[in-house]
Amino acid sequence: MAYPQNRFRHTEFHGPSLLQTRRETVAKVTLQTQLDMLKRTGRFDCFKLKWHLIYDDKSQWPVPKHLFWDSDVAKWIEAACYCLADKETYDPEIDKAVRDLVEMIRGAQGSDGYLNLHYTVVEPEKRWSNLRDMHELYNAGHLIEAALAHRNYYHNDLLTEPIEKYVSLIHDTFGPEENKRHGYPGHPEIELALFRLYEATGNKKAYDLANYFVEERGNPAGQGGRHYYDVESEERGDSPWLRPDPYPVARSFWYCQAHEPILQQKTIEGHSVRAVYLLTAVTDIAVQDRLGLQKNDKASAWLEAANRLWNNMVDKKMYLTGGIGAIPEWEGFGRDYFLPQGSDDGGAYAETCASIGAMMFAERLLHLDLDSRYADVMELSLYNVVMTAMDIGGKSFTYDNQLASSDAKTSRREEWFECSCCPPNVSRLYGSLGGYLWNFGDNGNGEAFVNVHMYTTAKLSFDVDGDPITLEQTSDWPLNGKVQFKLENPKAMKTTIRLRIPGWSAGQYTLEPKLPEANVEKGYLTLPPSYLEANSSFTLEILNFKPRFLSPHPYTNQRTLTLARGPIIYCVEDADNEWETNHFKDVVIAPSVEVKEEERIASEVTGEKYIALHTTGWSRSISQWESKPPGSAPGIVDEAEKETSLGTERPLVFIPYYYRANRGGRGHMRVGLNAA
Amino acid sequence: MAYPQNRFRHTEFHGPSLLQTRRETVAKVTLQTQLDMLKRTGRFDCFKLKWHLIYDDKSQWPVPKHLFWDSDVAKWIEAACYCLADKETYDPEIDKAVRDLVEMIRGAQGSDGYLNLHYTVVEPEKRWSNLRDMHELYNAGHLIEAALAHRNYYHNDLLTEPIEKYVSLIHDTFGPEENKRHGYPGHPEIELALFRLYEATGNKKAYDLANYFVEERGNPAGQGGRHYYDVESEERGDSPWLRPDPYPVARSFWYCQAHEPILQQKTIEGHSVRAVYLLTAVTDIAVQDRLGLQKNDKASAWLEAANRLWNNMVDKKMYLTGGIGAIPEWEGFGRDYFLPQGSDDGGAYAETCASIGAMMFAERLLHLDLDSRYADVMELSLYNVVMTAMDIGGKSFTYDNQLASSDAKTSRREEWFECSCCPPNVSRLYGSLGGYLWNFGDNGNGEAFVNVHMYTTAKLSFDVDGDPITLEQTSDWPLNGKVQFKLENPKAMKTTIRLRIPGWSAGQYTLEPKLPEANVEKGYLTLPPSYLEANSSFTLEILNFKPRFLSPHPYTNQRTLTLARGPIIYCVEDADNEWETNHFKDVVIAPSVEVKEEERIASEVTGEKYIALHTTGWSRSISQWESKPPGSAPGIVDEAEKETSLGTERPLVFIPYYYRANRGGRGHMRVGLNAA
Repeated sequence: MAYPQNRFRHTEFHGPSLLQTRRETVAKVTLQTQLDMLKRTGRFDCFKLKWHLIYDDKSQWPVPKHLFWDSDVAKWIEAACYCLADKETYDPEIDKAVRDLVEMIRGAQGSDGYLNLHYTVVEPEKRWSNLRDMHELYNAGHLIEAALAHRNYYHNDLLTEPIEKYVSLIHDTFGPEENKRHGYPGHPEIELALFRLYEATGNKKAYDLANYFVEERGNPAGQGGRHYYDVESEERGDSPWLRPDPYPVARSFWYCQAHEPILQQKTIEGHSVRAVYLLTAVTDIAVQDRLGLQKNDKASAWLEAANRLWNNMVDKKMYLTGGIGAIPEWEGFGRDYFLPQGSDDGGAYAETCASIGAMMFAERLLHLDLDSRYADVMELSLYNVVMTAMDIGGKSFTYDNQLASSDAKTSRREEWFECSCCPPNVSRLYGSLGGYLWNFGDNGNGEAFVNVHMYTTAKLSFDVDGDPITLEQTSDWPLNGKVQFKLENPKAMKTTIRLRIPGWSAGQYTLEPKLPEANVEKGYLTLPPSYLEANSSFTLEILNFKPRFLSPHPYTNQRTLTLARGPIIYCVEDADNEWETNHFKDVVIAPSVEVKEEERIASEVTGEKYIALHTTGWSRSISQWESKPPGSAPGIVDEAEKETSLGTERPLVFIPYYYRANRGGRGHMRVGLNAA
Repeated sequence: MAYPQNRFRHTEFHGPSLLQTRRETVAKVTLQTQLDMLKRTGRFDCFKLKWHLIYDDKSQWPVPKHLFWDSDVAKWIEAACYCLADKETYDPEIDKAVRDLVEMIRGAQGSDGYLNLHYTVVEPEKRWSNLRDMHELYNAGHLIEAALAHRNYYHNDLLTEPIEKYVSLIHDTFGPEENKRHGYPGHPEIELALFRLYEATGNKKAYDLANYFVEERGNPAGQGGRHYYDVESEERGDSPWLRPDPYPVARSFWYCQAHEPILQQKTIEGHSVRAVYLLTAVTDIAVQDRLGLQKNDKASAWLEAANRLWNNMVDKKMYLTGGIGAIPEWEGFGRDYFLPQGSDDGGAYAETCASIGAMMFAERLLHLDLDSRYADVMELSLYNVVMTAMDIGGKSFTYDNQLASSDAKTSRREEWFECSCCPPNVSRLYGSLGGYLWNFGDNGNGEAFVNVHMYTTAKLSFDVDGDPITLEQTSDWPLNGKVQFKLENPKAMKTTIRLRIPGWSAGQYTLEPKLPEANVEKGYLTLPPSYLEANSSFTLEILNFKPRFLSPHPYTNQRTLTLARGPIIYCVEDADNEWETNHFKDVVIAPSVEVKEEERIASEVTGEKYIALHTTGWSRSISQWESKPPGSAPGIVDEAEKETSLGTERPLVFIPYYYRANRGGRGHMRVGLNAA
């Protein structure tokens, strides 16, 4: 029960909340919309193994357009199985589609267990010839996750059975033994899936294979004394200088975190989704070790590496929205502190999937080290990246999540993408969201614990040694910080509850009834059994919900101010500020101005609300820099002659960043405004 | 006489000045040092066509290490011939070496006229197979320039003769005719050289070939309906996705300005040296047309394109040092306003050769449009990029010229480079520097004119219809703005002198004796014949030499202040500020502080002086951003809690940027300091 993808079923979103609104939208609208899209594009039927016109398309290299189809289908199955589990939103058509897909997948498996669309239909002779680029093992990973979700919901092994057969084949192909290939996936994903498979089924091959992939990764001399990707590239007959577009130079193996062994990596590099999926698996080795699921001699070394890379990511390579990945060219990390807001100041990517991966990574770490710094990032990512990635109607999505629009890249969403990893990833995240709210269980001695990471309205039910426990939280978080709790547990059972006090609250909270000698350690307030025995109902209020201005690290070269309120990061967009024509590039704000709150209705249908913030800014003039004849001198101004006025005063309306691009407009948007 | 490379011989640096100090150093030290380097590395003998071990080195692709050797030798010959012309610094050993080299080059020519090291010795069968990458025509261009310099000095055709034969072969190979290849060089250079060859010899093939290269460049359908570089790549059997390291993605033809025809290009893109060499040639079409050397129907269209790209370059892609090229990966331009100062905030390249090219480009434009905006950039580039590229001893060089050091890239110079384009380029620029100071001649009606672009101590001599004219300027520019002039011309000759009033002087100058109704147009003060008849001696003083703080365009995201004085951009380095350990990244300055000047001796040997600037700054603290436990949240600080103090006060010493890295130290340096 260690994984949110299993644990979510213990959570019922029993009343209205922003999270529940999104979950319902996904279950009632998004799954159906995405199913239509799977059907329209050919994905739904692809495991029938018939030829599709798109397979003839050779315009992309090395990755053809259909290469991710297996995973798109798998992630949709996974999301569907999560949502079907909620009786409130059960949809028989979705149920039927899952069954049909599973039937087709079963039929697509080769007699030896092989199961991959491209290498079955399009290039059957080239199986395992390009682990670096071809997503063969990535697709397998998502099939494993789909199978686990399917098994949990349907309680049968219609999907796990073929998948375990496939895993067995992969295990026989890759490993440390001399007769096996010493390769590992260019796009990590299968590792975290295999560890989950091991936990669910005890399949030791799955564990060993995942552990091998993690251990072998980045070995400079893994295959015949050379880097595996060099060897397989040579075997394909590729020139060493033939390289995919995301590789800035030949052998940029850092793109897929294979430039050196993981234990030696000092900074988080490359494609951000790959990095966080990989580190989720790396951390899971330590989690499984800690929980006694599978002991691992190197558990502490893996955890140390994961922590080192977490710290580098959060401190130096994360946007204040929680977004990760500054460089569109390789969909990933730039150098430390390189965090431009948009395409016209040097980049910004912040892929939706990367923040989902960061949530998974944080969730793993919380099992090992209950520290609100992980949960703070998890919540930040959820409300400010994952949530901005889908419109409130549940039908359109973003792939990347820039912090400022530009003419080249306005603020808007799309129905689907050619490489459509993000939309079904959002669905499966919302489907399993309950699993991220809290961790719980018994302490091994008949005592119960609940660690509450995120606040909303939800009810947790689990039992310890057959005795049922429920914990209910009721809140209109993230609009306000008040959370009412109600615990029901057997009288004799000692229960400890730990409540996260977010870092941004600066430790300001109240608890009623009061707890004498309140103990907040690493951002969690512990309510001991004695308190809970006396108080089955209690109310936490996280304070410091007043709007605050955030300043990014000076080394980012972003002298900006961003409004935030509670866990929510704000932005301006032209829907409220219609005079704007330059993506708010010339608007300045000052922290001294008054900020007023206004509660607004986002949707009459769902009753969704948000708090808009009203303040004042100035439209600065850049005319001084542009007053000389063109081509006179680099755009410089003699400081002594500089205008000192802030510019024209403007009323400004800010809205939650997650809510951007829901009300039309021209797509002008910005999160960080220039500080006056 | 339109080119500075010819015109410099009319200028004598007859007294001490910073420019003369550098020129003497080049003639007395640098040429000899570089000759030694040519000999030590194998370049000197390469035209003997013997095998060299380096030819076996296949570690680089597509460009092997020796590929530029022809041009290194050629540029050295060119520089040597310029310096030999100065009797003060004539060196018989240099003279001998030039003669030997020319003999070897003559011996290396094929019977059909072909003359290229690599394709004669290493891959003779692959001639003209890779114009995009292999610098075959680039090398030819430098040989042409060497031949012109050689001819001017030796007054024989020992080098022009084989070179013209080579040009004839190239002309027979490339052109619009159906039986010719429709290619053009990946690295422009030959175009500007061919135009100069035409001017010198009237060789019409040279003109037509250059014109063709310019016209054909970027044609999407030039070779069999396709882009030439696609066709030649296919002919080589290369995969379309095989690409050199500077190509961020396949077919990044903007790297070499071949993404679309030049007339359609709206922004200056790609490798900066290539861009400015190309635009020098493009502009030269219009210059030759204007001067009646060769009429061209499209002259005005070419000039319009050159101006458009000049404006884009200067206004949006130029550092305040005059440096161009923000992106090390392709040694060239980034997006508009992307001008990070150093490797740890996103880039900075500012190649020495690019600024030499920018000077050449500016010089061409000044013939068409006498506007100080071009000369301002020319002078800025000379004093702040070209001059920083060589140490005061004349023995070490930079390739790129960042505005801030980092641990990964400290501030220092090298003796030589594997691809050593910059050192001999600096030599030939200083050797021909007199040609950039002024333009002069007759107005076509027996009247003389001198347009003075740059001030120093120098004497110009030329004649109009056989009558000698001399104009002497005496100044310790750039230390001070006072320039004394003395004109000697025949009584009857009407002479007009135009004096540049630099943009940074904000139009502040004095002229003695006074000129009634002074007329400054586009930054040039015109002294009409009537004034000069009355005043053969006069003194101009450019004012506003007080130190000024410059602020770059806000869109650069650089909220910095840079000290400048006259044409000189200043920096701080640890040699004066020994307490510094973080490359001045955490130092802030404010424009309100007092700045004091101190005259210092740079070299007891040469008597070189400079003005150091003393002021006060503050070491800001970034501890607030780093006070949370690692990995807590993206490095943000709640503005309300931010410290308001500027930090610890520090005395700061600034020196001219060109003088950096001459006094040891740890290589910590910065041009733009954070504005308080």
